Amino acid sequence: MSAAPHSSRPAAAPMVYVCVTCRRQGEQECALDYEPKPGALLAAATERAAEGSGVTVRRLRCLANCSRGPSAALRCNGSWAYVFGGLDERNAGALIEGAQLLARAGDGILPWRGRPDILKRGLIARVPPLDFQEVDT
Amino acid sequence: MSAAPHSSRPAAAPMVYVCVTCRRQGEQECALDYEPKPGALLAAATERAAEGSGVTVRRLRCLANCSRGPSAALRCNGSWAYVFGGLDERNAGALIEGAQLLARAGDGILPWRGRPDILKRGLIARVPPLDFQEVDT
Repeated sequence: MSAAPHSSRPAAAPMVYVCVTCRRQGEQECALDYEPKPGALLAAATERAAEGSGVTVRRLRCLANCSRGPSAALRCNGSWAYVFGGLDERNAGALIEGAQLLARAGDGILPWRGRPDILKRGLIARVPPLDFQEVDT
Repeated sequence: MSAAPHSSRPAAAPMVYVCVTCRRQGEQECALDYEPKPGALLAAATERAAEGSGVTVRRLRCLANCSRGPSAALRCNGSWAYVFGGLDERNAGALIEGAQLLARAGDGILPWRGRPDILKRGLIARVPPLDFQEVDT
């Protein structure tokens, strides 16, 4: 596995961040709010899917995509970061697959081709690596 | 100005990334697509607003928030990154103000209080700093 561009570390270190507080789209907070939350279920499923994959899964609270959750983000050292929404437990494997695809990408960009479908239609936003500079803008 | 947590550099280095290819919400690509694009106008206005502010403005192509553009993102070294949508040229000053607010935040989180209104209602997603680890999830 080669290091992504702009990396300050030797490994690509694929990572999936999963928001554990996410509800499903359209679900409102209420007094009878049930547990575990869909986000927490997605996190648990993603942790299971990550076993032996080389991908690190980190749970966190809030990727600020609350209206289109459940949410998760992918990133490697020096890569772009990608936020996805409208996920559920069945997408855990796709998140791991996406993180591995990103880790293999020499340019730090998650390729469209070969990307699991949910990582196409569920894309919310992406953020460049810290030192990114666009050519010819 | 103090360094944000997780920073490997001494300065907070507030930065605004502006997508120059963004259209307005609901605007479709068409043969008679006009120039300059709303994203490019926002970028130019943000560059003007940044003069003497200590904030760096970087133009880029696509934050993958195409359905809710024009889009921009804020980040400092070691801070969370924030993506905003539904912007226009009048929001250039708010982007600079937000970047400065983030640079002053000791915890790398853009405070809600005192944040320009467009950076509340226009928030699309946020991404943690590379080494972020949530406590007690």
